[in-house]
Amino acid sequence: MEEVEEQVKKIIDEVKELHDSSASFISRSSQQELSLRQQASFVDSSIRRLHSSLLSNKNLDPKLVDKLEEDLHRARCMLVDGETSSFLPSKPQGRFVRMFLGPVNVRALRKDVQLKVKEEYNSYRDRTALLFLFFPATLLILRSYYWGGCLPAFPVQLYEAWLLFLYAGLAMRENILRVNGSDIRPWWLYHHYCAMLMALVSLTWEIKGQPNCVQKQRGVHLFLQWAMMQGVAMLLQNRYQRQRLYTRIALGKAKRMDVVWGETAGVDGQLWLLCPILFLLQVFEAYVGLQLLRKTVTGVVTEWQVMVCGILLVVMAVGNFINTVETLMAKSRVKAKMKRSKSKAELN
Amino acid sequence: MEEVEEQVKKIIDEVKELHDSSASFISRSSQQELSLRQQASFVDSSIRRLHSSLLSNKNLDPKLVDKLEEDLHRARCMLVDGETSSFLPSKPQGRFVRMFLGPVNVRALRKDVQLKVKEEYNSYRDRTALLFLFFPATLLILRSYYWGGCLPAFPVQLYEAWLLFLYAGLAMRENILRVNGSDIRPWWLYHHYCAMLMALVSLTWEIKGQPNCVQKQRGVHLFLQWAMMQGVAMLLQNRYQRQRLYTRIALGKAKRMDVVWGETAGVDGQLWLLCPILFLLQVFEAYVGLQLLRKTVTGVVTEWQVMVCGILLVVMAVGNFINTVETLMAKSRVKAKMKRSKSKAELN
Repeated sequence: MEEVEEQVKKIIDEVKELHDSSASFISRSSQQELSLRQQASFVDSSIRRLHSSLLSNKNLDPKLVDKLEEDLHRARCMLVDGETSSFLPSKPQGRFVRMFLGPVNVRALRKDVQLKVKEEYNSYRDRTALLFLFFPATLLILRSYYWGGCLPAFPVQLYEAWLLFLYAGLAMRENILRVNGSDIRPWWLYHHYCAMLMALVSLTWEIKGQPNCVQKQRGVHLFLQWAMMQGVAMLLQNRYQRQRLYTRIALGKAKRMDVVWGETAGVDGQLWLLCPILFLLQVFEAYVGLQLLRKTVTGVVTEWQVMVCGILLVVMAVGNFINTVETLMAKSRVKAKMKRSKSKAELN
Repeated sequence: MEEVEEQVKKIIDEVKELHDSSASFISRSSQQELSLRQQASFVDSSIRRLHSSLLSNKNLDPKLVDKLEEDLHRARCMLVDGETSSFLPSKPQGRFVRMFLGPVNVRALRKDVQLKVKEEYNSYRDRTALLFLFFPATLLILRSYYWGGCLPAFPVQLYEAWLLFLYAGLAMRENILRVNGSDIRPWWLYHHYCAMLMALVSLTWEIKGQPNCVQKQRGVHLFLQWAMMQGVAMLLQNRYQRQRLYTRIALGKAKRMDVVWGETAGVDGQLWLLCPILFLLQVFEAYVGLQLLRKTVTGVVTEWQVMVCGILLVVMAVGNFINTVETLMAKSRVKAKMKRSKSKAELN
């Protein structure tokens, strides 16, 4: 009997002890974390300050400036890409994440967890691209060979619901990557919000059937064709991005959290294939949008959904185009700079 | 000139140093965390083992057993509610969270952050309940006094989109609370998934207009009435839950992460108001569902959406009913036990 009493007492002591050591561990580690955060911010701003003073100082030997600039760049890479990165101030968690998750923290402290998130995002994108190709292709094939040119409403709505789910997931994941230090362009997030809105609106849009459904379903038909092309482009992009990222990591030039969906700087060989496809896709997206708008303007269709989808498609096409061009320009700037410093080095 | 060179060198050294201390901090703290986790699991299982051996041991004095049981209970509360709770194995992150967020960790290490998440969830629920009351009420009022008994499609679809968004947010937040140690019943998550599906399906459901729209919109009309009642019930529940939670925290009996949406154990005075309203709501929910089903069975309506919404409403009503009854039964068991130990104490 006393044995049991003894055991209970022992366990209560153990719990108390564990409670104390947990509390002290948590308070100690949050203090240390805070101090590392302060140091990291301080060093980061020192590097920036030094870099700008280096550029504004005209009395220095250009060769020395180049060397020091490279040193600073390397230091910043170490700061931003290494273990310290967890302690640099992160981008604030966007409204979108807060709306769905509340104030929970989605930033990973450890680099390996961050990279796991990134890896999982890449494989999610791969799976997504396959479905992006497969889903509309199946619908179009069934339409031609089985449904006699007339899409039934249910599968199309299922596809639209999937699009909504997909873009919500992408927007969420890319927001999280941003918080974890990725340099993803904000446009891609806005793009996903637009796409979510479009999927939602198109769900309320009645898919009209016979008679004369080929005419009535022209918009949906065009949209599915565009989606198929999108699938091909996504597959190419994913392959290209991953290769480019690995190259850049190997060169020590990229923070590994970079996600550059739709960005086109890097592996040159594939770029000649990817760029035209991207531009073609954007043109086709705008064309589908304008077709939908034309229908509402000429009064063939009176549903507001068609107009909203048309506007959203045009907005997304223009935004995608601007962002692709900006990325290409940034890339050519980097290239020109590299060439310059290379030729300089050869001259010297 | 050399001054700048010197500064660059200094900063590179600082970065290296910071890098090393960050790396050592991260590896050290993850080791300590791991060891705390192991200890916490071990103590937790010891408590469980001891508790069951206490109950199975018939040779002990009942008075002593009661005392030891209470001691063990208090030890477990300290373990589960205190700082140690962060190191106890958590419920796995559900599929729903992984689907949208990927493998990112949403568990907060620090208790104060966990409580912040909980508090924010409570205020989110309050805001939600107000909208739940306001949104359908506005639609119904406008229908009667402005739209002449006939709901236009757009506001109803806007409402349905809001429902989808709302239930997605609730499901996400409650999943996160679960990971953070809340004892929320799994049913409420399934309920939210059903509600999301229903909102999605109802978005594709055409809202028919004139002529004879009062007849055609009977289902939507009933649904809006039910939603308004739901808003009232949610407001009552929120007030009740919060009060109950604070009482239970004060009594040291609850883990503070408990969320018990729809659960009804606790503050007795309000329970007499809440319980009938909850049951009435469930009956009305089932009635709306059956009305929809009857329409499809009798062939008045041929849309599959009506049938699916009907089934989902009935499923949710039955699930809610079962869970409310189970909670009431659990409550009465606890009460009986408390009474027993009280009268025992008085006898002794």
